[in-house]
Formats: sequence, C-alpha cells, structure tokens
Amino acid sequence: MTLKLGLPKGSLEHATVDLFRRAGFLITVAERSYFPAIDDPDIECMMVRAQEMARYIEDGALDCGLTGHDWVVEGEAHVHTVSDLVYAKQSFGTVRWVLAVPNDSDIQSVKDLEGKRIATEGVGIVERWLERNGVKAEVEFSWGATEVKVPDFVDAIVDITETGSSLRANNLKIVETLMESYTKFFCSKDAWEDAWKKQKLEKIALLLKAALDADGKVLLKLNVEASNLEKVKDLLPALHSPTVNPLTDDGWYAIETVVDESVVREIIPDLKANGAEGIIEISLNKVVA
Amino acid sequence: MTLKLGLPKGSLEHATVDLFRRAGFLITVAERSYFPAIDDPDIECMMVRAQEMARYIEDGALDCGLTGHDWVVEGEAHVHTVSDLVYAKQSFGTVRWVLAVPNDSDIQSVKDLEGKRIATEGVGIVERWLERNGVKAEVEFSWGATEVKVPDFVDAIVDITETGSSLRANNLKIVETLMESYTKFFCSKDAWEDAWKKQKLEKIALLLKAALDADGKVLLKLNVEASNLEKVKDLLPALHSPTVNPLTDDGWYAIETVVDESVVREIIPDLKANGAEGIIEISLNKVVA
Amino acid sequence: MTLKLGLPKGSLEHATVDLFRRAGFLITVAERSYFPAIDDPDIECMMVRAQEMARYIEDGALDCGLTGHDWVVEGEAHVHTVSDLVYAKQSFGTVRWVLAVPNDSDIQSVKDLEGKRIATEGVGIVERWLERNGVKAEVEFSWGATEVKVPDFVDAIVDITETGSSLRANNLKIVETLMESYTKFFCSKDAWEDAWKKQKLEKIALLLKAALDADGKVLLKLNVEASNLEKVKDLLPALHSPTVNPLTDDGWYAIETVVDESVVREIIPDLKANGAEGIIEISLNKVVA
Amino acid sequence: MTLKLGLPKGSLEHATVDLFRRAGFLITVAERSYFPAIDDPDIECMMVRAQEMARYIEDGALDCGLTGHDWVVEGEAHVHTVSDLVYAKQSFGTVRWVLAVPNDSDIQSVKDLEGKRIATEGVGIVERWLERNGVKAEVEFSWGATEVKVPDFVDAIVDITETGSSLRANNLKIVETLMESYTKFFCSKDAWEDAWKKQKLEKIALLLKAALDADGKVLLKLNVEASNLEKVKDLLPALHSPTVNPLTDDGWYAIETVVDESVVREIIPDLKANGAEGIIEISLNKVVA
Amino acid sequence: MTLKLGLPKGSLEHATVDLFRRAGFLITVAERSYFPAIDDPDIECMMVRAQEMARYIEDGALDCGLTGHDWVVEGEAHVHTVSDLVYAKQSFGTVRWVLAVPNDSDIQSVKDLEGKRIATEGVGIVERWLERNGVKAEVEFSWGATEVKVPDFVDAIVDITETGSSLRANNLKIVETLMESYTKFFCSKDAWEDAWKKQKLEKIALLLKAALDADGKVLLKLNVEASNLEKVKDLLPALHSPTVNPLTDDGWYAIETVVDESVVREIIPDLKANGAEGIIEISLNKVVA
Amino acid sequence: MTLKLGLPKGSLEHATVDLFRRAGFLITVAERSYFPAIDDPDIECMMVRAQEMARYIEDGALDCGLTGHDWVVEGEAHVHTVSDLVYAKQSFGTVRWVLAVPNDSDIQSVKDLEGKRIATEGVGIVERWLERNGVKAEVEFSWGATEVKVPDFVDAIVDITETGSSLRANNLKIVETLMESYTKFFCSKDAWEDAWKKQKLEKIALLLKAALDADGKVLLKLNVEASNLEKVKDLLPALHSPTVNPLTDDGWYAIETVVDESVVREIIPDLKANGAEGIIEISLNKVVA
Repeated sequence: MTLKLGLPKGSLEHATVDLFRRAGFLITVAERSYFPAIDDPDIECMMVRAQEMARYIEDGALDCGLTGHDWVVEGEAHVHTVSDLVYAKQSFGTVRWVLAVPNDSDIQSVKDLEGKRIATEGVGIVERWLERNGVKAEVEFSWGATEVKVPDFVDAIVDITETGSSLRANNLKIVETLMESYTKFFCSKDAWEDAWKKQKLEKIALLLKAALDADGKVLLKLNVEASNLEKVKDLLPALHSPTVNPLTDDGWYAIETVVDESVVREIIPDLKANGAEGIIEISLNKVVA
Repeated sequence: MTLKLGLPKGSLEHATVDLFRRAGFLITVAERSYFPAIDDPDIECMMVRAQEMARYIEDGALDCGLTGHDWVVEGEAHVHTVSDLVYAKQSFGTVRWVLAVPNDSDIQSVKDLEGKRIATEGVGIVERWLERNGVKAEVEFSWGATEVKVPDFVDAIVDITETGSSLRANNLKIVETLMESYTKFFCSKDAWEDAWKKQKLEKIALLLKAALDADGKVLLKLNVEASNLEKVKDLLPALHSPTVNPLTDDGWYAIETVVDESVVREIIPDLKANGAEGIIEISLNKVVA
Repeated sequence: MTLKLGLPKGSLEHATVDLFRRAGFLITVAERSYFPAIDDPDIECMMVRAQEMARYIEDGALDCGLTGHDWVVEGEAHVHTVSDLVYAKQSFGTVRWVLAVPNDSDIQSVKDLEGKRIATEGVGIVERWLERNGVKAEVEFSWGATEVKVPDFVDAIVDITETGSSLRANNLKIVETLMESYTKFFCSKDAWEDAWKKQKLEKIALLLKAALDADGKVLLKLNVEASNLEKVKDLLPALHSPTVNPLTDDGWYAIETVVDESVVREIIPDLKANGAEGIIEISLNKVVA
Repeated sequence: MTLKLGLPKGSLEHATVDLFRRAGFLITVAERSYFPAIDDPDIECMMVRAQEMARYIEDGALDCGLTGHDWVVEGEAHVHTVSDLVYAKQSFGTVRWVLAVPNDSDIQSVKDLEGKRIATEGVGIVERWLERNGVKAEVEFSWGATEVKVPDFVDAIVDITETGSSLRANNLKIVETLMESYTKFFCSKDAWEDAWKKQKLEKIALLLKAALDADGKVLLKLNVEASNLEKVKDLLPALHSPTVNPLTDDGWYAIETVVDESVVREIIPDLKANGAEGIIEISLNKVVA
Repeated sequence: MTLKLGLPKGSLEHATVDLFRRAGFLITVAERSYFPAIDDPDIECMMVRAQEMARYIEDGALDCGLTGHDWVVEGEAHVHTVSDLVYAKQSFGTVRWVLAVPNDSDIQSVKDLEGKRIATEGVGIVERWLERNGVKAEVEFSWGATEVKVPDFVDAIVDITETGSSLRANNLKIVETLMESYTKFFCSKDAWEDAWKKQKLEKIALLLKAALDADGKVLLKLNVEASNLEKVKDLLPALHSPTVNPLTDDGWYAIETVVDESVVREIIPDLKANGAEGIIEISLNKVVA
Repeated sequence: MTLKLGLPKGSLEHATVDLFRRAGFLITVAERSYFPAIDDPDIECMMVRAQEMARYIEDGALDCGLTGHDWVVEGEAHVHTVSDLVYAKQSFGTVRWVLAVPNDSDIQSVKDLEGKRIATEGVGIVERWLERNGVKAEVEFSWGATEVKVPDFVDAIVDITETGSSLRANNLKIVETLMESYTKFFCSKDAWEDAWKKQKLEKIALLLKAALDADGKVLLKLNVEASNLEKVKDLLPALHSPTVNPLTDDGWYAIETVVDESVVREIIPDLKANGAEGIIEISLNKVVA
C-alpha cells in the first residue's frame, strides 16, 4: 500500500517542502527531478504544476496533493478536501481572482464587458462567471504576464493577486472580485473511501496543521505569587487556558501557556506590572490544541 | 512613426538582448518591467511570451518580433518572415517537436496512437498532425514538465527537444518527429507593406545577421614572399577570396582574410610550414559578406 | 500620537533590525529608503547616521533613537538615556576612542602632542580633551580611513577601535584612551515628560532588554532525587532562584532554571556528577527577570 | 595550565566548529589563519590535517584532537581515545577503507594481489594488511583522486569511501573491506595521566556528547486526564521515563518527555486519539541522559 | 624621481582602475590596502577620498590625482588641471550641485533662502554662493543621505545629482543649479613646474585620453570597386578621413576608417546598398587622432 | 592513433583550460570528472596532479602533459621537453623553492641545518640538496600548510613561493633558494620518436605558443607622412619589422606592427610627437612570428 502525493511545482515548492519538514517528513528534491524522495516508505511523491494537480487526483493517477482551491474550480474537478492550509504568517496566504482594467477605462462592472476581449490564465472560471452574469465576451488564454496586456492587446484581464501591488504598478484598477482562493490538501474520492489511505491522510493533515499552528505561537512561562494569580491569569488570552502549578516556595505558582507571538509584546509589560516574574518565551515546533 | 518590436520573454531573453547589443542596439531591461528601453527612438520594445508572439503580430498589436517558427504554426498565424536567425555556436539553435513514449511502450508510430491520451504544450500542432494521419486520440494541454507525465498520466507526449537528453533521462524514446523549428524574425503583413517599416525591418535584419555571422569568424593577417604566394593562397578556405596587397619590401605580400574560427588551428601550422610569416588572428564584431 | 524613532544607518543597521525583531517588532527596510516600515502603528521609523542622531533628538525632530554615547558627547547633546544596550555576545559592544601613532613615533602621551597635527572623525571630542590637558595642537577632520594618514599626512590620529587589529595592521600603536562608548537608547527631554511617550518608551526598552537578556541565556531542566536536591541547588547560579517541583515518582524533584549560556559548559559536568539526570538545555527568545 | 587542542583542517572543519558551538565553545576561524580563537582561556586551538593529527598528539605538540581512527592506525600512533563521536544525522559518519578494482578485473580477493601494483593514501595500513595475508605487492602513495588511477596506472586501489558512489561512478567494484573508521576524540598518554588535563578532557567529551545527543531529539509536552493517563504513558517510548505532574485543575496531569524526533510523527496522532491535549514540541540544545 | 598619484576611493574606484588598465597601466588593489601597486616604477599610488584629494595635492603630499572639479572648488585648492576626463559612455559623467526643496515649498530661488537652514556636503560652496547673492542663511554640514533631511530637519538642501531621480523619489524639486562638475586629472603647481614630472603627467594624460576615445569607436574595413568608391567615401563620417588602398584585383579598393560605434548601425546598410563588400567591424583599445 | 594528454589538476587547471581555448581547443571539464572532453578526436585528456604528471609520462601511461619543471626534478623522471610555457602576464609564472626559517632563527645557511628537522612537500629535492652540501638533517614530508609548522613542529621548512608574501605573513624569512621552476609541456621519449605523435605535439606546441605570444602583444596601426617615415620607423621596436604601405593620398604611408603591450604606453607619446596620426591599438588572439 502506498499513497501517491502530488506537491506543487513552482512558487510554492520551497514552502511546501519546508512545511513537511516541520511536520516531521524529510522531502529531498534532486535537481531536475520531478520525483522527490520522502523518508516515509508509505508515500510516493511527485512534483506537479498547481494547475494540473486536481485533474490527476480526480483521474486517480495521484491519491492526494496540495494545490489552490481556484485550480480545482477551473478544472471542475471532483475531489475531496482533507484540510485547509491557510494561516497567518504563511506562504500559503489567500489570493483573489479579480477583473482588472486600466485606470482610465470605462469598464465599471461585469456588465460592461459585453463584446470585449479578456485575457486570463483561467479560461473556464471566467467563461462560467460571464455566463452566470449573462454577458458575452471573447476570453483568451494567457501564458503569463497577463497584467501588461491591457490596453494594447485586450480590454480587460482576470488575474490572480495577493496585494494588488503588481496591478497598481501597471496602472490597473480592480473592478470586481470573482473568487478567493487558498491552498488546500485534496484527495480523490476513492482514496477517501479506502480505510488505510483515509487514516494516512488524516495523520498527514494533523501533522501539517500542528506545524502550521506552531508557526505563529510561542510558549510563555512565568512565576507569580498567589495574591497576583488571578490578575495575571486575566491578562492571558482566554482561548487557551494556561497550565497553573504550585511551587514548593510558599505561595508561588508557575504558569505556562501557549500564546500568539503577535500579542507577546503587548502582554509582557502588563504581566510584569502585575507581579509576574521570571517571564521567558520559547519557540515551538508543533502545536496540537 | 515607430516600429513595435516584441522580444521573447524567458529562456531566450538574455541571448536576444546580447544579439541586439552586438548588432548595435542597446536594450535595457528593468527588473520586473515588460517594456525594455532601446537606444533607437524609432523602436518601442515589449517582452512577450514566445507562444503568444505571433498572435499579437498578426493582430497588429506588434509590428514585428522574434519567436520560434513552431509557435507560428501552432497558432496558424498569418505573419511574414523577415529573416532566419539560426547559426552554429548560437543560443538560437534548432529544436524538434517529437512524439515520445516510454522505452517499453508498444507505440511505434503515429498509427498506434488511436484511442490513446497525449499531453503536449502545442495542442493545435498535434491535433492537425493526427488529423493528417487519420488518427483519433485525446490531446490534452500540458502546463510544462510534460516528460514526467508518461506513463502515469498519459500514454504518450509530444514535446520540444534539442538533444533528447531530458527525454532519455526520463526513460523515454523518440518515435516520430513532427516538425523542426528555429527562431525567426517575423513581422505583420501590414508592416511589410509599409515602406518606412519595411526599410527599418530590413536594416535590423541585416545588422542582426552581421553580428551572428561574426560570432564564429576571425580575421587572419599574414605576410608571404612572392614565391610562396600561390601555395599559401591555396591553403586558405575557398569561400571568401582573400585581400592580397604588395608591400614596399621587395617581393613580399600582405594577405588578409576572414575565416571560420574552427579551421584556424588546422591551417596555422600549414601556413607557417609554407612560408607565411607574421600571422596574427583578430576577433570581429560584425561581418557583412 | 506617534513616537518618532531613529535607527542607526550603517554598520549597526542589521543588528538593530534583528534586535527589534526578537523584541517583537517587525521592521522592513526597503532598499535605498530611509523610512523603514514597522508593524506598530504608534511608531514612525527613520534611518539616521549614528553621528547625527543625538543632534536631531535634541532638536525634537526625533523623539528617540539608538546611537553611541560617544556621538552624544561629540555633539554635546542634551538628551535623556532610556536604557543601555550593551551586553555580551552582542553587536552592540564597547568601543574605545584612542590616540594612535606610528610604532616608531616619539609621542608617548597627550603632552607630546603640543604643536602637532592630528586627524580624527571626532574633532570636538579631541579638542576638548586637548584643552583639558592644556595642550595646543592642530586637529583636522577626517572623512574615514584615518589610520592610513600617519605618518605621511599627520603626526597622530584619534580613532575608534574595538580590538585594535586595524591599527596594528597599519603599524600603529595605541598611546592613550580618551573615552569608552557603547550603544544606548536615547530620547528627548520633551518626550520623557510626555506621559504617553514615556510609557511607550519604557515598554520598548523593556522588550529590547528582554530580547538582549535572552541572547546569552538558556533554560536548563533536570531531575534529581531528594537526597541530592540541596547539593544540586547549590551548584546553580545564585542569581535566579530555580523552580523546584516534586514529581509523582516518590522522592524525585524536577528543577528548572534560567542560566547564562556561558556557564552551562561549567555546570553540566558538575550537575551530572552530583546525581542530576535527564538534563536538557532549551533556547530562549525573551527573558524578563 | 593550557590544553592544546587540534581541530581537523578540511572537510570536517565546519562540522567540528559547529559541534563545539552547540557544546558551548565558540571557535572563531580567521581566514587563512591556522590558529582559531576559542572562548575558553584554558584551551589553545590549532588547525591540523586529519592525517597528521595523531603524529602531533603522540609527540606532545598537541594534547588532544579530533581525527579519524584510520589515521591513528596508519601512523601507528600511541594515543588515548577519550570518546567516540559517531551518531546518526551527523557529519561524523562511518567510512570504510576498501580494496577496489575495475568491474572487469580478475582480482577477487587479497590473495590475487600478489605481484600487483596498488595506489593508496594509507601506505602503512595497506602494507601491514598485505603482510598479515602473506601477500607481496607494490604499494605506492597517492596524493588524491586515487579512484581514477585504475586501470591505467595501477592494478588496484585501497580507498576511503562512505557510500561507494564515487567508486561506482568510476566503474570500480569493491572487493574487500580492510577496516571501518569514524571520528574520535583522542589525547596523548601524558595528557591522560595529568589530573588537570584528564578532568578537562572528560568535561569536553561530556559536552560534545550532550550536543550530539540533542541533535535528533525533541521535548514533547502534553496534558491528559487521569482516566487516560496510563494509555498515554504506554504510547511514549519506554527508554526515557516521562515526567508526570498533577495540575491544579482537578484530575489533569502534565507530561513531559524527551523523544527521538523521528518517532514524533508516529505518536502525535495516537496521543491525540487517546485523549492527550495541548501537545507541543520544543527543540533541544543539549541532552544528558 | 617618482610621481605620487592619488586615486579616488569609493564609487569611482573601479572605473578608475579600469581606465588606467585600458591606458596601459596595471593597478592592483589589495583588499583593505590603501596603497595599490602599479606596474610603472616611476609612479606611487594611494587611494584618497575624492573630497580630500585636492587638499593633499595642494600640500604636495601627492603630485597629482583624479577627482571632481567640485571638490577643488569646495576646498579652494590651488591646483593645476592636466586634462578633463569627461566622455560619452563613461562612468566619468557630469554631475550638478543643485538647490532642492520639497515639492510644496515656497522657496523659488536663492533669494528665498534668507534666514533658512540648509544641509549640504559642501559647506564652502554653499556659503560663498549665498554671499555672492547677498543672502544670509544657516548652512550645516551633512554626512550623507542629505535628501531625506528636508523638511523635517532643514528647509532646503544643496546636493549632488546626476539625473535627479533620487531627489524626485524623495518628493523634492530642483530650484537652482549652483555649479556643474566632472572628473579631472589635477596636479600641484610644483609638479607642473618640474620638467620631469610635467612630461610624465602629459604622457599619462595622453594615454588616458586614448583609452577614453577608443571606448565609443570601432574600426570598419570594407572593399569597394572603383565605380562605387566616391559614393562609399561620401557615406563615411567626414571627421576622420579614411585610409584608401588599391588592391591587386583590378579596380578594387580596400577602405579602413575609425568611426563612432553609434553610427555603425546607420551606415552599414547604406554601405552595402552602395556596393561595399566584405564589411567587418573590429574593436579598438586606444585611439589617438 | 590518439595522443594521451595530461592536464594539471588544481591551481593551474583553469589557466590551462583557458590557454587551450585561446589556442583553438575547447576543453570541457565536467564537475567531479577527471576526464575532460576536448573537441579534437585525436586527443584524450586526463586531469593529473602536477606532482604525479612526470611519473606517468615516463611510464607511458600518458604521452604528454603540462607540469612544473620542479616535479620532474623531484621524481627524477626521464621525459622530453616539447616547449617552455613561461611568459610575462601569465598564470604560468616562475616559482622558487626556498629554505625558510623564523625571523629570529639562528639558521643562516644550509650549513646550519646539521641535525635539524625540516618539513617540505619535496622530500627528494631537499634530501639531494642536503647531500650535495654534505649536511645531515631530518627531512619530513608535509601535506601542506607547511609555513605554520615552524617553530612549533620543525626547525625549518623548504616551501614553494612566488612572492614570499605568505612566508612573511607567518613571520618567516627566506635563507636560501634551492631551485627555480616554471611550467613546461613534456612528452615521453617514446612519443617523441613516433612520427605521428611528434608532428601532433609540435602542432599543439605551436598553437599554445601562438596564444601565449598574443597575450602580451597588440597590433598598432598608424599613418605618417613621407618626411617623418624614417623617424617613426626608428621608434618602433626593432624585433618585428613593420608593414609599410603607401596610401593613395600623396606622400602618406600606413604602418602596421605587432608590439609588446608593455611598450605601447612608452611609444605612443613619442610616435605622436614625431608626426604619427590616426594611431589605433587592436587586441590579438594569436601571434606566430
């Protein structure tokens, strides 16, 4: 029994290998090879373009893989979502598919596209969106660098953007958002119905999530006297209840808690002001709530 | 009047800019910009994917551009060829579109593709080729890394190759060659009929060719006495007749000739053995025969 | 309300950005920009030369900033010291301003400078020092590479040095030390009297200090039987009292303590020799005593 | 009293400096200098070729050093082994000295070497091995690149190999293994008999081992209810008994344990399935069992 | 007799060494050394900051050096100009000293500076300029990054600019130009009056100029029949008369001429159209008209 | 028939490949391979350590190769010298074998070595030299970094040096020079007696020499009036007589001559002062006198 796992070739490649490493799987990518080694004999890896991943999972050529939700929609692929992989501070952020036109264009909504020419990497997404809106337009496939094609070659583009800065740099404005997308861990319907594969998929998903969760979190440890215990506990984020332990020193307690790295700079001064001592912050590799 | 010139984005980008520099045009590519500057006010440059170049020349969005003959065929574009750009020792070598299958596949010719599944970056080229051969097969578009898709995802691929080494490294064999292709300098039908643009196009083509021709050639200069003159002239390649000039020293002649760099190491020992003196070799920037 | 923060441009730039990152503030320095972004909306950053920092804090153009004590002295600036930033294992080490002369020079002390010519980057520091010593000499400003100017251009130099190696490499010897200096976090008198700014300054100072303190410290954890408890506790540095906790296993205690990284290699062998088991060492991000 | 420590120059240099850093000693290697600085005033470092290390330890020019067991054997040096330094996941892996011949050679064992010519970097090792086997052959010293010398220059080689891949790449096959070797920490007989030096050597060995041991291990922390306590403890590796602590929350326990990094991905899913909560994983710098 | 030559340390360093190399002098700059070696025993080199060069030439510590005209003016140094070093396609372009103010400032000319505060690297240049204009203002020395000091620290700046892009990027506008400057080869009055040094200085200047002149020029060679000789000669730039030589082949002439590289792409097509054959272009190292 | 050519592995590798390229042979060195490809089917290349080259040429395992004269002496190899390869401006410069001792050593000549210990990479050279001088001393082989071994390990060293700077940096002084050495092109006695190999060796030597000769030479071209012709000719180096040609312009002559690059800077000023015009300098690839 082996699980065939597709990894996205290209811009997410490094981030994916790094995520698996933190989850406990060592993936070794030999230069120019599309078949990386992984230190789990139950898994066989293959590098596949994000755009084509869902097609080959649906076919059963792959059991599972990581790719964007958008490319599943583009290919209308019938696949099962094992888990989302979107978190703050990650390379796996959210992207948007947007309709963009020159700053001085008259196009203000999808309705104004009637009879126009549109370039995009996702012809299916755009054609179905136009159909839902009752608009007829010419949609052409773009091999890349879509944002420089307006206004010389086409009237509008539908492009993928994270911050919009590349569009602005080309003097384009965003008119509409067609969809949002982020990376997910997908598998085929068949793999999900196979007991061994389902269990393996759930284990991998749990470990990927544990590594992603650890990325923005740290362990805070501190000591506090009984009289300050409640004040200090109140300052800690409510989400995860802290571990509290009496010390042998009379009337002192040791507190440990996992907190978001982003709140540490806010709460440390308050903790100290309220009697906490011996505050230390430690990095984490994995967190399972 | 300006001439809109498309330059191929991607693997040929550096070689193209370098060729224009040697031809006498300084192209400056700002990072992340698709509109390089050129030091000729009559020309406006734009970076365009090789696959899309012919489409936009045919449309008239560009007047001219450099791209492979294959992509013109794929898009069935109606464009005019100004000149070929294929020479020894160049990055602009010849590529082949080939049908490749696993080493142990039963497919031995196009006829065996009936009912099979084929991945390729040139769906149009393959579909018309199958039709000419009376074969029905499923052709799917590949976003890249086509060579790793057999046999897991498809039965055969049609891929672009120069030496075949990447195919062999993936345990594939070449069954048929669909077409050969190399880089050409194309323009639109309209540009070719415009007198000003036609003259400009011919000038650019002449200079590009002069730079390419100089690449594998050197100037040889030598002195020889009258008695050895004919023997020495016979040793020089027949193609380009040498310039012979009497010197003021009685009975001596100075000879100059442009020769292929690759023959120099063969003829210099022979020239010296036959009485040539003061042999020197000089590099060339441009050669116009 | 915003706090205007000056960061030192140049050799300390990277170390400063790194220190703030460990303290919890993400500073992003765009290439060629002097206005880095910081992920705290209450703060505005600006890159300023260390030599000029105090001048602009005194003026009120900046509320606060990091720079060397020496440049405050050179400019005789009236600013408030929020905190020192000098610690072992830091880029923010101590430097010395020294009088250096050629190895074979007759100058043996400040008294021998009478009538001589001296090059330095700190004209004010040197002139006041000469005056205090009742010596008259010509002091000239040096734009850098001061150490190569003796003996061809001047008789002596006053230069900044950490280890003296650059001086020795130029065959110079150190005759006197004018002052020692290290990096401090300064603010203007006005900022210190503004309640909101003062509280903000103290929070930043606390977090910078927590990150610096963590740099040379680690968490040691170990288990010990009751009979060895006192011996082991005596081996731990007295400064920070350890956390001691009885385990469910009869008669064993778990001990945790933060210690200087530099003593670990001394005490681990002793701890083991005195019955400590399961000793582990963990890195720390921040420490607040 | 100082301890003179030899560090191996060359391929193990970086790994050695890194190991000492993790053990608590900062070694600074100035470019082109053979005398690195170390932040322990009791130790003086020197870079020495691995091949020459044992010679200079035996001489007393060095008190101790790291080098391969093989080079001690080659030089028949009388030195004392303080400790082995071979661990999984380390640069300090095991190598073999092997007899290698061309794939098509008739040589099948040491007996077939009678009258042949052998190249090697370890002439002493090979000559004594031949003598023990009663074989007479010509052994010549090789300056390196030994594997390319057969069959043109010699009949066989004795070479050092880790995986054999370089031999295979040169169409050689391994016929016999003369010895295995790995890196050890050696000292002179005199140093081992000096009380102060012996204690110092043992301390260094303990710290090097603590750093090597930490390399493949992590700290797992988790909380569990009383009813699940035994099940969860059974899932943890038996080797190191975990630290168990009751929490103030009724009926909950905190568990901490050091485990091999390689088993984490197996046990985390099981721990969670059996009621463990708040599982976190933390990196370790040193481990002393 | 030796000539002491100052070379500008910093941004022009590489361009200067390269210029001397093309002129025939090999300068070797050892890392961290300020005394480059030169392969002419009559010359001793020293790296000196551009700002300080004129001071040390005036003093006689150096005989000559390359620096900007502006720094001579700033220091009011009495030195002799051996030659200008400004040419197209060179790193030694022209810079301007300009008065720059924020885009929204009211300052429209030097007259509006009355009572204002100005930062600059050239305090002398600015103070004398204000005095000539009868304006009183506070001028302060800037250590660099002058353009970021307005409007927070000063009202206006006088800065050095080539294209103005850095000023525009900081939202500044140029109000007045104080002076233009470019690199010159200077010597001391004494050196110029010493016969041996004067001759040496003139030789160096001639060779530097020959190398600079060659930079934008190439040698064109071509053959032409008698009937086309005059037409072809008319196409060649009038400035340098071409070398014309009859060949042994009846009625053919060989023409050689040095032309600006920038016109080659214009005249080659015309030359060919008018009967020129065997056109070749060759690079030049030095040109002395 | 093939010629087996040995190329020196190590510090001369790049310079050797570059020399062959300029001579007209393209050598391609694959990473980690000792058998470079060459674009001449008559030649087979192999990388061999300089120290071992002569041994294998003498054996006949190689027909020919490039190595230092010193290593031939060290091994007392009987080989034939095809040609020297030492020229100004080359990587193939002269080195010296020297006796070096600490600056404060009492050793002042070979006589003082009696009973001392010497480390060297050339044991044979040193032992024979001592014998010739009637001195008995202990000579030990050094694997490298010889210069750091005195005075701690040995009393003196014999080391290879070009400029002596590495010795000086280690506080050593040179006491005696044992021999000078430079790179030569050697062949075996047998190869020199084989007619086909001898002719091939002579051709290669001719082309290597042509490329080396071109390295320090340039082509000077200039025009001069009849009245100045003799004066100008007298200024040109006597070695190579210049080519003189009357121009169609009455009374003018064109002169061409190959000169050493190092004299150009001397003669250009004189040529111009004596009426030469249109002086240009051109680089050369090969020169055969």
